[in-house]
Amino acid sequence: MKLTIERSQLLKSLAHVQSVVERRNTIPILSNVKLEGRPGSLSLNATDMDLDIIETVPADVSRPGATTAPAHTFYEIVRKLPDGSQVEIEYHSEDGLLSLRSGRSKFSLSCLPVEDFPVLSGGELPHSFALSAAELKTLIDRTRFAISTEETRYYLNGIYLHAATTPAGEVLRAAATDGHRLARVEITRPDGAAGMPGIIVPRKTVNEIRKLIDETECEITVSLSETKIRFAFGDAVLTSKLIDGTFPDYERVIPEGNDKTLDVDVKSFAQAVDRVSAISTEKSRAIKLALEKGTVTLSASSPENGNATEEIEADYDAAPLEIGFNSRYLLDILSQVEGDGARFSMADAASPTVVKDSADGSAVYVLMPMRV
Amino acid sequence: MKLTIERSQLLKSLAHVQSVVERRNTIPILSNVKLEGRPGSLSLNATDMDLDIIETVPADVSRPGATTAPAHTFYEIVRKLPDGSQVEIEYHSEDGLLSLRSGRSKFSLSCLPVEDFPVLSGGELPHSFALSAAELKTLIDRTRFAISTEETRYYLNGIYLHAATTPAGEVLRAAATDGHRLARVEITRPDGAAGMPGIIVPRKTVNEIRKLIDETECEITVSLSETKIRFAFGDAVLTSKLIDGTFPDYERVIPEGNDKTLDVDVKSFAQAVDRVSAISTEKSRAIKLALEKGTVTLSASSPENGNATEEIEADYDAAPLEIGFNSRYLLDILSQVEGDGARFSMADAASPTVVKDSADGSAVYVLMPMRV
Repeated sequence: MKLTIERSQLLKSLAHVQSVVERRNTIPILSNVKLEGRPGSLSLNATDMDLDIIETVPADVSRPGATTAPAHTFYEIVRKLPDGSQVEIEYHSEDGLLSLRSGRSKFSLSCLPVEDFPVLSGGELPHSFALSAAELKTLIDRTRFAISTEETRYYLNGIYLHAATTPAGEVLRAAATDGHRLARVEITRPDGAAGMPGIIVPRKTVNEIRKLIDETECEITVSLSETKIRFAFGDAVLTSKLIDGTFPDYERVIPEGNDKTLDVDVKSFAQAVDRVSAISTEKSRAIKLALEKGTVTLSASSPENGNATEEIEADYDAAPLEIGFNSRYLLDILSQVEGDGARFSMADAASPTVVKDSADGSAVYVLMPMRV
Repeated sequence: MKLTIERSQLLKSLAHVQSVVERRNTIPILSNVKLEGRPGSLSLNATDMDLDIIETVPADVSRPGATTAPAHTFYEIVRKLPDGSQVEIEYHSEDGLLSLRSGRSKFSLSCLPVEDFPVLSGGELPHSFALSAAELKTLIDRTRFAISTEETRYYLNGIYLHAATTPAGEVLRAAATDGHRLARVEITRPDGAAGMPGIIVPRKTVNEIRKLIDETECEITVSLSETKIRFAFGDAVLTSKLIDGTFPDYERVIPEGNDKTLDVDVKSFAQAVDRVSAISTEKSRAIKLALEKGTVTLSASSPENGNATEEIEADYDAAPLEIGFNSRYLLDILSQVEGDGARFSMADAASPTVVKDSADGSAVYVLMPMRV
């Protein structure tokens, strides 16, 4: 393999693919990135055996071929090369070294045989549909904060994606929960998503795809089976295993009959929550809302620090209610609300509260109260 | 105590003083900041028993008095108050609570008795002189990277400050070393520093005073005895204990007769060191310089990753030499060089190398080579 490539192009793709490579690997080849030069392009491939990213970039390839090189070191080198430079890459099969030249810098990287690089075959992916980058970002951003980190509840360690039928039509839904809060959002079902199985996309995959699409406006092609998912757009393809488990029937958790509604201005409410919670202990983060006609009084107290209260105006007409929440969970939800307003629907101080976004009726958040 | 103060004024000073408060304290009152309202001003005081900062800010004090409140919580609250707001602070001695009001927010902070707050008395500080902020920054920045972190060599855990006589005149010198590298810088001796004892200023004090003077252009008054140092400027006073130990006779370590000189362009040399070191292992960070007439060839290798070389032009006329350095130590020094050029004076591959700044003849760096 022998090729010349622009440093900035190489850096961008390398930054993407090296991100899936773990810092410590018991299997040495998983520390490497696979490089494959074909006429006109270089493809870069990294995997952790559960997740695989391939990105292809334009390159002037004079001798096609393939090898694998240490991903983080390769990335560090390219990152430190001067901006605007050209990089010459050549694989010398006789000594198993990849040489990299740019200006007066020369590097030789120890390679491992390309045959040993694990292939995460997608297998057959019978379901396929297209999402806009904005849609995929919405599905991820509105739900991923609620993903559980408890390893024993592995079936909650991801975003549940499934097709559903609602009175308003056919939708594609994303949901995540850690048992204390739940986030659910839906978009109009794309063509091709009908009949797809309910799948759980692991947290790492969610985070990697979210990074990948950060700067893109492309349409993303999602293909999936019961065990794998693939996201393809532009010159990048991310393939991942799915979590093999059953996501709980979360719809049952979303209460329907909560009759006490509170409408708040999101920005000023979030700032008040943030301020008042400054006093609550690092551990509990508890904050109390006392609701009365027209006002919410937020308060928090801690044995060591003291207490805090703040009153804000709000639209509330029901019987007075005192209810406690984890302030961090509240702020997580409020930071995802797109509109100026949020509506809290409550039953009592012990039952799940529903939060809705004034600008996005499809987003539903459920929050368990805390005893305060 | 009762007063009104501008949030931005309070925040700035509180940010400074709370910085010395440790996150975990076995003695509860060390988590607190002492507040003292006098006509026209509020003073804030925090200490860790070794280091003490007092800052005074203008405030509209209607009832003078004093108390102590949890520093980090107080800071968090003020930080989260809206910009431009006024803060009303009142101490209620009957229940031992400090109330804080701003807009519709109300906080009550648990206080501890002001009598229990430890006073780090400066004692008599017979030596006193003035430094410009720029001079103090130079003394700190050019040396602190070399401060040892080995706790057993406590006498190296700070910057050694002493007066000295040189052929060029009377100077005030700062030096730090960790046994692998040494940094020394000097300024013209300020009036009042003659006859001062050699003192070791602890790392934490160095870092705190460096933060404090970051935005100031004030003159700083330094007062000291054999056991304490005080920095005073504007409305802030920092008092600190000194390290009770003997700094080694570091001047003996600075070689005089190194006859092989290498002159490099600092920027391109530092970039080359940075690039080539991308390949060296995280642990050793070793880099080799091969010096020949007119060029330096930098190289590094690691058993896992491979190797790197880069050739740069340089002014070198002596016999060829190969010498190894810790690349991170090299970069630490190069990042402090103010001029475009740096001069390396070497004897051989096993003896200390001297580095000098083309723009600041007073700065001397000594670096022990590594075997490579």
